[in-house]
Amino acid sequence: MSRSFLIDTDAGSDDAVAIVMAFQHPDINVKAITVVAGNVPLEQGVQNSLYFTELCDVDVPVYAGAPRPIIREASPADWFHGADGLSDRGDEYVPRKTQVQDKHAVEAIIDTVRANPNITIVTLGPLTNLGLAIRQAPDIVENVSRCIVMGGAGCTNGNVTPAAEYNIWCDPEAARIVFLSGMPVEMVGWEFCQGEFVVTLDEIEHIKTINTTYSQFTIDCNQTAIKGYETQTGEIGLSLPDAVAMAVAIDPTIATETSQHFVDIECNSELTRGMTVIDKLNVTHDERNRDTWHDILERGTQPTICWELDAGRWKDLLYQLLQ
Amino acid sequence: MSRSFLIDTDAGSDDAVAIVMAFQHPDINVKAITVVAGNVPLEQGVQNSLYFTELCDVDVPVYAGAPRPIIREASPADWFHGADGLSDRGDEYVPRKTQVQDKHAVEAIIDTVRANPNITIVTLGPLTNLGLAIRQAPDIVENVSRCIVMGGAGCTNGNVTPAAEYNIWCDPEAARIVFLSGMPVEMVGWEFCQGEFVVTLDEIEHIKTINTTYSQFTIDCNQTAIKGYETQTGEIGLSLPDAVAMAVAIDPTIATETSQHFVDIECNSELTRGMTVIDKLNVTHDERNRDTWHDILERGTQPTICWELDAGRWKDLLYQLLQ
Amino acid sequence: MSRSFLIDTDAGSDDAVAIVMAFQHPDINVKAITVVAGNVPLEQGVQNSLYFTELCDVDVPVYAGAPRPIIREASPADWFHGADGLSDRGDEYVPRKTQVQDKHAVEAIIDTVRANPNITIVTLGPLTNLGLAIRQAPDIVENVSRCIVMGGAGCTNGNVTPAAEYNIWCDPEAARIVFLSGMPVEMVGWEFCQGEFVVTLDEIEHIKTINTTYSQFTIDCNQTAIKGYETQTGEIGLSLPDAVAMAVAIDPTIATETSQHFVDIECNSELTRGMTVIDKLNVTHDERNRDTWHDILERGTQPTICWELDAGRWKDLLYQLLQ
Amino acid sequence: MSRSFLIDTDAGSDDAVAIVMAFQHPDINVKAITVVAGNVPLEQGVQNSLYFTELCDVDVPVYAGAPRPIIREASPADWFHGADGLSDRGDEYVPRKTQVQDKHAVEAIIDTVRANPNITIVTLGPLTNLGLAIRQAPDIVENVSRCIVMGGAGCTNGNVTPAAEYNIWCDPEAARIVFLSGMPVEMVGWEFCQGEFVVTLDEIEHIKTINTTYSQFTIDCNQTAIKGYETQTGEIGLSLPDAVAMAVAIDPTIATETSQHFVDIECNSELTRGMTVIDKLNVTHDERNRDTWHDILERGTQPTICWELDAGRWKDLLYQLLQ
Repeated sequence: MSRSFLIDTDAGSDDAVAIVMAFQHPDINVKAITVVAGNVPLEQGVQNSLYFTELCDVDVPVYAGAPRPIIREASPADWFHGADGLSDRGDEYVPRKTQVQDKHAVEAIIDTVRANPNITIVTLGPLTNLGLAIRQAPDIVENVSRCIVMGGAGCTNGNVTPAAEYNIWCDPEAARIVFLSGMPVEMVGWEFCQGEFVVTLDEIEHIKTINTTYSQFTIDCNQTAIKGYETQTGEIGLSLPDAVAMAVAIDPTIATETSQHFVDIECNSELTRGMTVIDKLNVTHDERNRDTWHDILERGTQPTICWELDAGRWKDLLYQLLQ
Repeated sequence: MSRSFLIDTDAGSDDAVAIVMAFQHPDINVKAITVVAGNVPLEQGVQNSLYFTELCDVDVPVYAGAPRPIIREASPADWFHGADGLSDRGDEYVPRKTQVQDKHAVEAIIDTVRANPNITIVTLGPLTNLGLAIRQAPDIVENVSRCIVMGGAGCTNGNVTPAAEYNIWCDPEAARIVFLSGMPVEMVGWEFCQGEFVVTLDEIEHIKTINTTYSQFTIDCNQTAIKGYETQTGEIGLSLPDAVAMAVAIDPTIATETSQHFVDIECNSELTRGMTVIDKLNVTHDERNRDTWHDILERGTQPTICWELDAGRWKDLLYQLLQ
Repeated sequence: MSRSFLIDTDAGSDDAVAIVMAFQHPDINVKAITVVAGNVPLEQGVQNSLYFTELCDVDVPVYAGAPRPIIREASPADWFHGADGLSDRGDEYVPRKTQVQDKHAVEAIIDTVRANPNITIVTLGPLTNLGLAIRQAPDIVENVSRCIVMGGAGCTNGNVTPAAEYNIWCDPEAARIVFLSGMPVEMVGWEFCQGEFVVTLDEIEHIKTINTTYSQFTIDCNQTAIKGYETQTGEIGLSLPDAVAMAVAIDPTIATETSQHFVDIECNSELTRGMTVIDKLNVTHDERNRDTWHDILERGTQPTICWELDAGRWKDLLYQLLQ
Repeated sequence: MSRSFLIDTDAGSDDAVAIVMAFQHPDINVKAITVVAGNVPLEQGVQNSLYFTELCDVDVPVYAGAPRPIIREASPADWFHGADGLSDRGDEYVPRKTQVQDKHAVEAIIDTVRANPNITIVTLGPLTNLGLAIRQAPDIVENVSRCIVMGGAGCTNGNVTPAAEYNIWCDPEAARIVFLSGMPVEMVGWEFCQGEFVVTLDEIEHIKTINTTYSQFTIDCNQTAIKGYETQTGEIGLSLPDAVAMAVAIDPTIATETSQHFVDIECNSELTRGMTVIDKLNVTHDERNRDTWHDILERGTQPTICWELDAGRWKDLLYQLLQ
């Protein structure tokens, strides 16, 4: 049973793996890749995305979107993914045949969602494009069956600031639009790219033995990310947040513990900017919280938060889709 | 080897247990009880504290402090501890002989710390008194060997709001003064009054069999708190955050995993007000965080955060000190 | 010499007068009316705008835009303008022939500005549409010769809150996008609808004697606004902020004192939300301000602030265009 | 009829003039000078204040207070007043005989106010000392008949930031405590040290002709401030905000237009930090403002704002008191 996906991406090296997974899956029909500034500048992200379609030889349109967050300045993450987001391997990953679409990503999201009822959206970068699309065309919310967001932190510390994860921190206002929109958000926090979710050196060796274009690309384009993760955490291995989120998008049963809660995104304080504030204990109805949470309680929307994923099954799915 | 303690308290029913533990410990010399508005209004907290000294028959002076936070309005927690903080058992817990001191708690903290080098401070309520004392007499910071703070949340959700724990939320500005002051803060978060740290029904029965005035008082004055905890969490048992913090104060080895980090307290946003923002991953030196964390990096102070406590040993210490 | 205008409006009763002025001016070619939620809900604003084109018998396309601010909830001002924004005169102001365009206002702004180099934009409502258009198509900034904004307060108190004027307060994030975009903003604050700028009872009588459809409409559709202004300020008369701004757009020399300054819009604090913070004394380069104003200093954009207008000439222009 | 004054000062060169005025006035009995960090560091301010008492040969106790704001870092203004706050004239202004009191300024305020019912407080610096005193001893509010605050901006731009005046900006939290305390605050904003309130070159010559120790001191210790004012504004003359406020304290009829309003102090946003937000149009009861202004509406306190002062009479009073 074929499912339609729209993937919004900032086209770094873990996005690369996630997108290859989606392209490779027999039941998934990727209707559009929309690109947003994030890990790399917009134009680079567009080039990378076009390359992904050529690598997998798929006919998926790529649309350029927002070159910066709605309110904030752009904050590239080249220190983690390389200047081109793909470990700076010269012209190895340059698209040769395909071209970006004329239509803007925001319009592409609107049109694609309207044309594909029950579509699944997967966001791998800051939520600027999707936020702008929802503001311009609020009706699209009803047409989306699932919206898997790689981003946020589930009642734990952040990665780029003590309080916030990179994608949400980059454009907290866009994230707030999406999380409060009524779209059925499933948040896969950055905590699922740590610990047992990291692809170990042994597992990297295993991926190499798969010995396909895709397995080779997965390891090669992430060489800088492997170093970046060691610098950041002292741990050795390959951390692939976007690919983990894609695994949940492809197979929801990989998320073994989830629940729905009121969620707000901190947009006012620099200290906690971009924090995903989750009402895990159901205290937002308390008198002391009611004013602050008024708008959210009024809407009644409760995103789904992933608390536990099955690390073994995410890796099995990865191996399978790199074949 | 006798150690001097100063206990600042908002005198609810878990404060009661913590203070009894300190009074009962043979090596601890409680120099002063200073009272702050928190769980109960100031005047009630003073009466409760006087009663604690009478119950344990100790000659410890009780000082009245701030009737409200430095900037915010007071927010009593009578829904959890009862109107009197001690389960509203009529005149059972009324002091008969002792009287509050004339001196203000802020001055008492200043004088007591100056007179007792290497004193240990234990705070069981909002940090208003201690914050005001530090602002008025910054020199006292040097005289304190340990400052155990029951409060905050260690990279996890809060209890009164999704982001913050009650004591810090009540007076975040005071907490910010204390955490940034250079005083050697050891933070025992509210997460250590949940799960395995809760005194179970069986353990409550065990405490009853100890059959002393102290064991009886512990169970009796916490009847409302037992109900409050069930209402709040659905779990049954006795949750004693202040007594857990006192256990760490008495025996630091009960804290089995700790580390020092830069910490800031959110004071600007209502959504995340009072959050203890902990730089667990050491990212505050990153370019994107440097401006926001400038003052804290400049000072260099790193409070100690408790990550793991030994639940069995905290309960053993409790039982021992109720005999 | 004909000039092209694009008018973005929330279609209340002072917008009505402003738009009639533009339609009536022989040298002004209104290319598009784009409607935004503000004084009245979006759909009502669209109907009102269509009626304005029918009243003046002009062939100007009307586009529906954002039904709510980018981040905040909508905040209609029906208490001031009536439920329909035009004093609730039944079906008197219902469009009979014209229809709203299919294209979204954000796209209409982008396309119209791209197609009309040196166009003048006049905004009479919250800046949501224009903000979204700039984010989606940053290139349009270069094509705009003037952008007259009715909104803000020039170093004085606000009208809807002590710190902020209605249009900016409604969507401060959108205002921030526009003011920082590099578009040549000319801010006409709400202070120019007070005092000598108010149309007095005598002047209202004079307008009536002009005795055209336009003069009649001006007075009739503002009956509720006249009452609203008295309620708000105790003063009697007709306060027409949007028409004053349109007068400046039509004839820049009506602004007799202006200067350019760095300007930021408060988006973080509820107390001062939507304040137009103007660096009148040129202090933003001072060390204490440099971090806070960093992004704005970097961009170098300085909107023009109107400090003095010629009240007599604005009213003369009004009378002239109602003939 | 003698009136008791308590003066809290950060002891810069305009404070100097203000304090000399109070010392020289026959009917004013200055009970205490309490010093706070502000224009100059605390210790320097104490030395300056002692010198003022020696210069005027009065027996007024000087108390050292807070070395820094309650929450924020200290921000000296030596660029305006010189490193010593008095134009750096070597050891000319060093106290020879007097010594600072042992008692802390916060305690001195509490004790002095309790001992002198109907006392007038005049604050010439950041409000740290007074804020701490009110928090520690809320009862003192009732004993104060007038509290003249040099600080804030009356619905106009600030001086150190576009939104805020120096004294309030330095310690907005302390200002918020004072303004909301119920103490009868009379705010004399920084706008009254500009324009017609500036002592012109001719008037400086006139002051010199008074030819007393006091007139000489006034001009000499303000040499750096004269240069600072020219640098800041391009205007030439002597700007004496603290002396203007003292004139209002001495003779309330110099304030020719005043009114009472709800006032809040911005403490949450860096952009507008320390702004005195004044409800001039009485809009805080409106539905859209009610939540934000809840605490202030509840308390009902309305500070008095000075809108117009009589510049001629302030200067006459100055001349008179320098004789």
